Amino acid sequence: MRAARYYGKEDIRIEQIEEPKCGKGQIKIKPAFVGICGTDLHEYLGGPTFAPTSPHPITKETIPITLGHEFSGTISELGEGVSSSNFKVGQKVAVQPTLCCMTCNACKRGAENVCTGGGFVGLSGGGGGLSDAVCVSQDFVVPLPESVGLDIAALVEPLSVAWHAISAAPVEKDDTVLILGGGPIGLAIVQCLRAKKVKTIIVSEIAEARQRFAKDFGAHHVLHSINDKVVEKSAEISGKDGVDVVFDCAGVPASLTTACQAVKAKGYVVNVAIWEKPIPFQPNMLGFREAQYRPVLGYQRKDFEAVIECLASGAMKPEPMITRRIRLEDLVDQGIKNLITNKDKEVKILVDIAS
Amino acid sequence: MRAARYYGKEDIRIEQIEEPKCGKGQIKIKPAFVGICGTDLHEYLGGPTFAPTSPHPITKETIPITLGHEFSGTISELGEGVSSSNFKVGQKVAVQPTLCCMTCNACKRGAENVCTGGGFVGLSGGGGGLSDAVCVSQDFVVPLPESVGLDIAALVEPLSVAWHAISAAPVEKDDTVLILGGGPIGLAIVQCLRAKKVKTIIVSEIAEARQRFAKDFGAHHVLHSINDKVVEKSAEISGKDGVDVVFDCAGVPASLTTACQAVKAKGYVVNVAIWEKPIPFQPNMLGFREAQYRPVLGYQRKDFEAVIECLASGAMKPEPMITRRIRLEDLVDQGIKNLITNKDKEVKILVDIAS
Repeated sequence: MRAARYYGKEDIRIEQIEEPKCGKGQIKIKPAFVGICGTDLHEYLGGPTFAPTSPHPITKETIPITLGHEFSGTISELGEGVSSSNFKVGQKVAVQPTLCCMTCNACKRGAENVCTGGGFVGLSGGGGGLSDAVCVSQDFVVPLPESVGLDIAALVEPLSVAWHAISAAPVEKDDTVLILGGGPIGLAIVQCLRAKKVKTIIVSEIAEARQRFAKDFGAHHVLHSINDKVVEKSAEISGKDGVDVVFDCAGVPASLTTACQAVKAKGYVVNVAIWEKPIPFQPNMLGFREAQYRPVLGYQRKDFEAVIECLASGAMKPEPMITRRIRLEDLVDQGIKNLITNKDKEVKILVDIAS
Repeated sequence: MRAARYYGKEDIRIEQIEEPKCGKGQIKIKPAFVGICGTDLHEYLGGPTFAPTSPHPITKETIPITLGHEFSGTISELGEGVSSSNFKVGQKVAVQPTLCCMTCNACKRGAENVCTGGGFVGLSGGGGGLSDAVCVSQDFVVPLPESVGLDIAALVEPLSVAWHAISAAPVEKDDTVLILGGGPIGLAIVQCLRAKKVKTIIVSEIAEARQRFAKDFGAHHVLHSINDKVVEKSAEISGKDGVDVVFDCAGVPASLTTACQAVKAKGYVVNVAIWEKPIPFQPNMLGFREAQYRPVLGYQRKDFEAVIECLASGAMKPEPMITRRIRLEDLVDQGIKNLITNKDKEVKILVDIAS
């Protein structure tokens, strides 16, 4: 079968490999659509970071590994011990690509997203969506309602990152929320906040194309991160001493400072970004207003379920996030390289595995 | 009357000044005991920081100002509009020295401790405890039960800082709690956690004398901040992947790193320290385990009431915190200078105003 395999920095190969065997408790899936994620770009440009160079504690694999962790597909085989009353061959599903040990303290407390030795299908071994077949644990296969298309279902993973983020702070309908960074996750947060009927959503973003996306996707106010006085303007919009919640999806020193200054007294700064290196930070910025800093990582099963429910009910309509559809063979040239050079004009590029 | 007035760096004078007049809604208090606080030391050594060099938004005063914000006393006069059914001349009271505008958004939300233009009696003008008389708003005068002595009542303010801090995270009896820094506030947190019957309290501290205090005051484990592997040892004591809650009372780059590494996945780091300058910080340290950073500032009325209740019931017995009692005339030589040169051996020095 075909698979897009990551060998290292700037080295991704579409190869023929042997089809995986469906183990006990596993389900074999034929991937349909696979989103390309910022993490994939980071691995391509500067990795391996997540991709294991020594045996991963869960998969025991090292690079090369198959890529693709944002994916939907149809069930092609049920492994031993998988009940046919829960799953059926031919059924449409989304996959929560979480790999976790289920034995560490975090897993035992139901926080599989912060498992000490965790990882992701499509990054840490265990196959990946960018292939003709992948076998995953039945616990992480989420059936889709009929009304949710397989292309939209490939967006469930990034939308779940966003849903998990907005669940970290008590966001209310009447709140004013500021999102720093209008990339795919920032835009997914706009979608999730709209689904929760939040009335005042502000996005701060530098790139003009992304500013337009933010507006199209439902942000009520779009500010220019540098040309606008984001702290003052967002406070003015809030009608208070600052916004109720800030989501930092930018992850640069300036965004942390803006977040700390823009949040109201006793408000919340939710960090969604992954940070490349230490940055200068003055804790008093948060302390003098008793604002809380709540970082989030990934998602949990409940986030996947909530997002699928929103898609089924029509509360979320994320189709405009898909800016391009490509073939598996064109992954690097039309997918990854396009996201690198045209990053402001693309939101989500989907690989259509069957095409 | 006598008053200890702050003129600037290393310039505190015991002077004769006019006795203040009791305004509308104010209560005149004859201070009994006054604690010397770390903030007083900072003002003496490197200020003015809190002491106003331009008119303070609430008191309209500039230096010189009278010092003393940790104090108890007896009521000597009720101002116009103060009901004699609530307060009586001769009554023993503690004073919450908060100055707040009551009009900003934080005040309107009941968070007087983070008032935008707030300050403190004894630091920002409006008189201070280190004098023979001070007039404060009736809203911040807290009557004392008979069983609480006036010396102990001077500890209510620092204990309220600690009570406010432990209220910022959901600390449970079976939790393991790590306190970084065994100074007066770290020790006050030990007292508060003991009052809440928390079973596993760890203090990390460098100074030998303070380590002894921590043990005497009820810490179950005392670690040396440098010689002991605090992260590993506290995780071992917790029996989990880390402690449930960390209180950072040290406020140095190493304590922030230790806090982020010692806390369990989805635990809480409560910052109690005031930071002198920006420090290097890698948000992933918290993010990869979804630990929350919750800074606290000062206290609210409810914290004062909770502490007084604990003192009255005997749940808190903070008397050993008082390591020295001095006269007002000896404030600088035996009080402030002693705390600077013997800081590890002193916890709280009280000025006995009447002696």
